[in-house]
Amino acid sequence: MFELIRADAQTRARLGRLTTPHGVIDTPVFMSVGTQASVKALDPRELREMGTQIILGNTYHLNIRPGMDIINQAGGLHPFMNWPGPILTDSGGFQVFSLATIRKIQAHGVEFRSHMDGSLLFLGPKEAMAIQRQLGSDIAMVFDDCPPHTSTPRELRAAVERTIRWAAECREQPRGEGQLVFGIVQGGSNEALRKECAAALVGLQFDGFAVGGVSVGEPEPEMFRAIEMTEPFLPADRPRYAMGLGTPAQLVELVARGIDMFDCVLPTRVARNGTAFTRRGSISVKGGAYKADFRFIEEGCDCFACKHFTRAYLRHLLNVGEILGLRMLSVHNTRMYLKVMEDIRSTIADGTFAEFHREFVERYVPTQKVLLARAAAGER
Amino acid sequence: MFELIRADAQTRARLGRLTTPHGVIDTPVFMSVGTQASVKALDPRELREMGTQIILGNTYHLNIRPGMDIINQAGGLHPFMNWPGPILTDSGGFQVFSLATIRKIQAHGVEFRSHMDGSLLFLGPKEAMAIQRQLGSDIAMVFDDCPPHTSTPRELRAAVERTIRWAAECREQPRGEGQLVFGIVQGGSNEALRKECAAALVGLQFDGFAVGGVSVGEPEPEMFRAIEMTEPFLPADRPRYAMGLGTPAQLVELVARGIDMFDCVLPTRVARNGTAFTRRGSISVKGGAYKADFRFIEEGCDCFACKHFTRAYLRHLLNVGEILGLRMLSVHNTRMYLKVMEDIRSTIADGTFAEFHREFVERYVPTQKVLLARAAAGER
Repeated sequence: MFELIRADAQTRARLGRLTTPHGVIDTPVFMSVGTQASVKALDPRELREMGTQIILGNTYHLNIRPGMDIINQAGGLHPFMNWPGPILTDSGGFQVFSLATIRKIQAHGVEFRSHMDGSLLFLGPKEAMAIQRQLGSDIAMVFDDCPPHTSTPRELRAAVERTIRWAAECREQPRGEGQLVFGIVQGGSNEALRKECAAALVGLQFDGFAVGGVSVGEPEPEMFRAIEMTEPFLPADRPRYAMGLGTPAQLVELVARGIDMFDCVLPTRVARNGTAFTRRGSISVKGGAYKADFRFIEEGCDCFACKHFTRAYLRHLLNVGEILGLRMLSVHNTRMYLKVMEDIRSTIADGTFAEFHREFVERYVPTQKVLLARAAAGER
Repeated sequence: MFELIRADAQTRARLGRLTTPHGVIDTPVFMSVGTQASVKALDPRELREMGTQIILGNTYHLNIRPGMDIINQAGGLHPFMNWPGPILTDSGGFQVFSLATIRKIQAHGVEFRSHMDGSLLFLGPKEAMAIQRQLGSDIAMVFDDCPPHTSTPRELRAAVERTIRWAAECREQPRGEGQLVFGIVQGGSNEALRKECAAALVGLQFDGFAVGGVSVGEPEPEMFRAIEMTEPFLPADRPRYAMGLGTPAQLVELVARGIDMFDCVLPTRVARNGTAFTRRGSISVKGGAYKADFRFIEEGCDCFACKHFTRAYLRHLLNVGEILGLRMLSVHNTRMYLKVMEDIRSTIADGTFAEFHREFVERYVPTQKVLLARAAAGER
């Protein structure tokens, strides 16, 4: 199922190949987020053209709209959205704990009110796995308890215990034909909890292991520590997935820390705000600085936007609210992420990843927020 | 410049060919509206794939944003938006009279406040032609006075006189290399004024003639009458353009009344509201009726949306606000319009247009608004 092709000699980076019912995925891989059965602003042809290997769907959202009745009639998520490649579905745990109004956490799941219409719903290991089986995703995630970054040690421990118990329940549920199931390690920034959670999940022999409880509002240094304290306890022969991360530089850093899979809304979300990712950091194309800049977004980029449109034109489109502007930034940003992953894979393959890693991080100018968090961490 | 290939024996429909600097256009033709240098939600590849021959740009809007400084630096509108085919630009007359706050109508143009930031601007024959020359459009429109549907006879007469005077001024302005210039006939529903305006403009020997002052809020029967009372005074050897119209059935009706060119925002505008055009009328794909309808929007349609996505999926996308939904309805609606024009051209060519016309209008269910206007006209 997962073949480890090469482990980098100087970093913890790994080159691998993951086989799923809808195709083989080369890792490290970036997975585009299609929460509501659509990668925002992009169509399947654009996704294929830019080298998308796998996309995400979301149990919580799809269960509310359009509802499983519709998706079942369509024959599952693949035919419903006409995406022929692999799909990973998140379990809805993160959304229940971050988006919904929780009414009661019970032994076998959570009673909550939908963020859409307030209707009372229940999601637990059994329900989340049943929905993901019906969605027909290639990779299903266990239903976990994902507490906020501000949780107390007591809350963090309770979340880890619940996550382990629910993971065991998920493990026992029937799965779709060929469907892989990944465990999710919680434990926040607590090393002992991370280790305990990882060990318990590894014992349950999942097909892959995710690090959850990151990208929940913590500063970057804390995120890196959470990954570093978890990774050593994950088996080398299974893929590792860091959930909800991150900037291009963070992806390179996390590959160097042994992570194989990523998903993040940033490429399409910041595009809708008029921001483009480049190898030197993000730029606000919407800004007045680019109004007479007739270069492409990024020199050397092979995306559809960089083959056809200048910054000045895209800036105009964003400025007057034309949909083509955010479409083209979504195309560029997504292709930029995928190309970084391609470069990561080729440099691991030829033994030059450590150099690529150093140069990439050196060249990439982080956002002010990341810089401030780093400075604060240095002062501690 | 304009070649009349065939005049239909049973109707006033005409098959023609219009040569412009950026390519030859087969008429009757539908022109997609790209007011702000983008056909809303569509990219140039999609436009080409669906058979788009020519698109529109707008003097008033482009002059305000991005401004002529930027477009001049880009080398004109074609390179700015990367559209290699013909472009027709409207003069801004319609927008000045419908969108802006007019401060003073002067002898040689209008002083008005921008609808964007209230800044004081001036647009007249000289300015409108200069801007269109810089935009580099293949077809420029004269700067006209387009009064509202509710104008008094005195206002209508003043508008016609001003339109004729301004047309003569436009005629004297320098034009871009190979740029065609079309006159615009005003006169509302007044037969004498329409005739007077048409005769005066024909005397000025424009390259083509538009019927303006339609699609300004008048009921459908009045719109047809305005076309019918103008068309006989337009020369057979020049293209005729009905501005801002209409529904698919209206386009077929207007071709039968001797019109060669159309532009309309409907295909992309109603798409953004979740409505799709079909040969049996428009349907609200967003409506609950289609939530489990796994057919394509329209059987036999060859558009990208109808090759890939079901009504149920598109309805879901529109329902949850995913951009792909309005994108795909924009694709379908635009292709539907273009395919109707293709059918019009092929039936004029083989002498079966009258039959096509009758069957199309018979099958097409108009909106409630159109039906009510027809009933009211019948009662008069």
